[in-house]
Amino acid sequence: MNYFSSNFKLGILGGGQLGKMLLTETRKFDIYTSVLDPSDEAPCKVGSNEFYIGDLMDYDAVYNFGKQVDVLTIEIENVNVNALEDLEKIGIKVYPSSKTLRTIQNKATQKLFYVDHNLPTAPFSRFAYTVEIEDAISNGGLNFPFVWKSAQFGYDGTGVKIVRELKDLENLPNVECITEKLIPFKNELAVIVARNPSGEIKTYPVVEMEFHPEANQVEYVICPARISAAVAKKATEVALQAAQAFNHVGLLAVEMFQTADDDIIINEVAPRPHNSGHQTIEASFTSQFEQHVRAVLDLPLGNTANKLNGIMVNLVGAEGYTGDVVYKNIETIMGMDGVTPHIYGKKQTRPFRKMGHVTIVNEDIVEARKIAECVKNSIQVITE
Amino acid sequence: MNYFSSNFKLGILGGGQLGKMLLTETRKFDIYTSVLDPSDEAPCKVGSNEFYIGDLMDYDAVYNFGKQVDVLTIEIENVNVNALEDLEKIGIKVYPSSKTLRTIQNKATQKLFYVDHNLPTAPFSRFAYTVEIEDAISNGGLNFPFVWKSAQFGYDGTGVKIVRELKDLENLPNVECITEKLIPFKNELAVIVARNPSGEIKTYPVVEMEFHPEANQVEYVICPARISAAVAKKATEVALQAAQAFNHVGLLAVEMFQTADDDIIINEVAPRPHNSGHQTIEASFTSQFEQHVRAVLDLPLGNTANKLNGIMVNLVGAEGYTGDVVYKNIETIMGMDGVTPHIYGKKQTRPFRKMGHVTIVNEDIVEARKIAECVKNSIQVITE
Repeated sequence: MNYFSSNFKLGILGGGQLGKMLLTETRKFDIYTSVLDPSDEAPCKVGSNEFYIGDLMDYDAVYNFGKQVDVLTIEIENVNVNALEDLEKIGIKVYPSSKTLRTIQNKATQKLFYVDHNLPTAPFSRFAYTVEIEDAISNGGLNFPFVWKSAQFGYDGTGVKIVRELKDLENLPNVECITEKLIPFKNELAVIVARNPSGEIKTYPVVEMEFHPEANQVEYVICPARISAAVAKKATEVALQAAQAFNHVGLLAVEMFQTADDDIIINEVAPRPHNSGHQTIEASFTSQFEQHVRAVLDLPLGNTANKLNGIMVNLVGAEGYTGDVVYKNIETIMGMDGVTPHIYGKKQTRPFRKMGHVTIVNEDIVEARKIAECVKNSIQVITE
Repeated sequence: MNYFSSNFKLGILGGGQLGKMLLTETRKFDIYTSVLDPSDEAPCKVGSNEFYIGDLMDYDAVYNFGKQVDVLTIEIENVNVNALEDLEKIGIKVYPSSKTLRTIQNKATQKLFYVDHNLPTAPFSRFAYTVEIEDAISNGGLNFPFVWKSAQFGYDGTGVKIVRELKDLENLPNVECITEKLIPFKNELAVIVARNPSGEIKTYPVVEMEFHPEANQVEYVICPARISAAVAKKATEVALQAAQAFNHVGLLAVEMFQTADDDIIINEVAPRPHNSGHQTIEASFTSQFEQHVRAVLDLPLGNTANKLNGIMVNLVGAEGYTGDVVYKNIETIMGMDGVTPHIYGKKQTRPFRKMGHVTIVNEDIVEARKIAECVKNSIQVITE
């Protein structure tokens, strides 16, 4: 099939910031795109060739959108999987597959998948409802502390809580969930794997999430991770195994923990471009977004090596500000060396909303880290 | 003024490939854009926030478009300058200025500007009509060989002819023109200068045009140029002097010749992103398109250094093919290391039409040059 002609159509479910950055690449290659998103103000309304409004969890909306494209991909995993399955049956190429999405959408199923495929992950228990956890504790089947995770719709840290005592369970929603053993870790790492339908597979360098010492929030994504070659090799192998187990097509972002004993265990995976890969736009030979397009179109994969070291800082809405967004001091950070802000184009800010990100590239990772801190201390996402 | 809000509007005259690549950057920064172009099929129809159809040489079309934006820039210099001048009078920021565009649009005026500002350029004569050239030859005022250039609307080599004998003049249009002394040169070089209204000024590394040994056509733009540091310094200084003489705002691409004696003379300038800077997208810290946006919005200029060496190959329509375009073997070149095709999105190809370009980046310039040759020998812009 000739992707580089207007007879071909790539469908994207979701029109948020990840979709927007995918569109930069489809525009570069002049690949015709059609986007479905629930919001009339979605960032992808500009930059797509066709834009439709619809509920991504609605069978009819997804099916009717999907049947008019040649290849269908996603920028968010919470989409109607039954529609995708039926689209596959009528010959639409759906990447990632409905099977993979069904497995990943439910955290219990995702964990069982790791166990079934001998992929390292923290021990866990599965519960139909949160209220059943208390029984497990009282009969000795579960010990504090542990991590509670909602099985469905966990996204960006919502639906996750560390439980140290009974009262931590009190305000949790009574839903299908898992509990995971709380494993102390040295580092949170991630590897993005790209694979195309022909089976070509490549990994990006291991990245490291650096946490704020007090707030327990990721402050910086650092590429490459400041870890030993042996640990990097192990993390890369685990990520490759995961992608192969899924027979995955597209990007698979594999989030992992490096334990106290330098073991690598999988935390979770995302079958799409990922926050841990944003620095690839400036730092890598091939950005994760270009790579995702290459992969789902079965084009040759690009070089995943870094041109330079890269650090990514998320731009999230400051606490105490809700309304029309202003990026205070954006001019200041644009004057710093190798600094590129990406503004997602959401009109309204609210506390912790992802509004953009900033990439810092430098030949010297120590220098890059210093500049990243200056960026973090300068720019503020507030209101007018 | 807050550029990063929907209360601000950047206007762009021209919606071709240069405009399209500018829009990649305005989307990255979420800067609201409005584009005017004569064609309903212009590449900028997708990716701009507003798109209008109109004749860029028409006073009313340009004036009415321009009065509804805050900052107005161009991606092509053949626009109605009287409209720009009147827009400046009502307070619209026009970069480059109407004065600069008026000087540059006419090659005779452009040459006189160099002379007036002590900028090195080849000796020339000015003629109101091509037919007057014969008189100058017969009275000994002009000697063969020389270069004939139409004063108006010269673009991408059209309107230029080397005249070695009388009969070479025969089929030339009878228009305002200049004749230039034909100066043998070792290299054709270019430097892109960026300057913002606050006066911050930066130059990109000198690039070199490598010509096909027989066809006398630019085959590769190579960055950095394979020249001595002394010649590079001289070329950079000449380019800086030119930008300062114009009090230029935005990008100024300065095309120069390196003579047999290693002198540098200006060939011509373009007050916008330029073909000689396309490799900056992948090779530089700051692409020329991002830099143009930074400059016209009076934001700090980005780092102009190379991350890696870069080579650019133009994708032009192959001879003998007119119609719906096909990029034969594009998959092949996408499998080569560090190779990125840019497809402009023009539906119809015709011989020598600029349809896209390909960038090759590599730490080793010799390796990059080899890969560039493989690219050139593989991809073909043909029809179905």
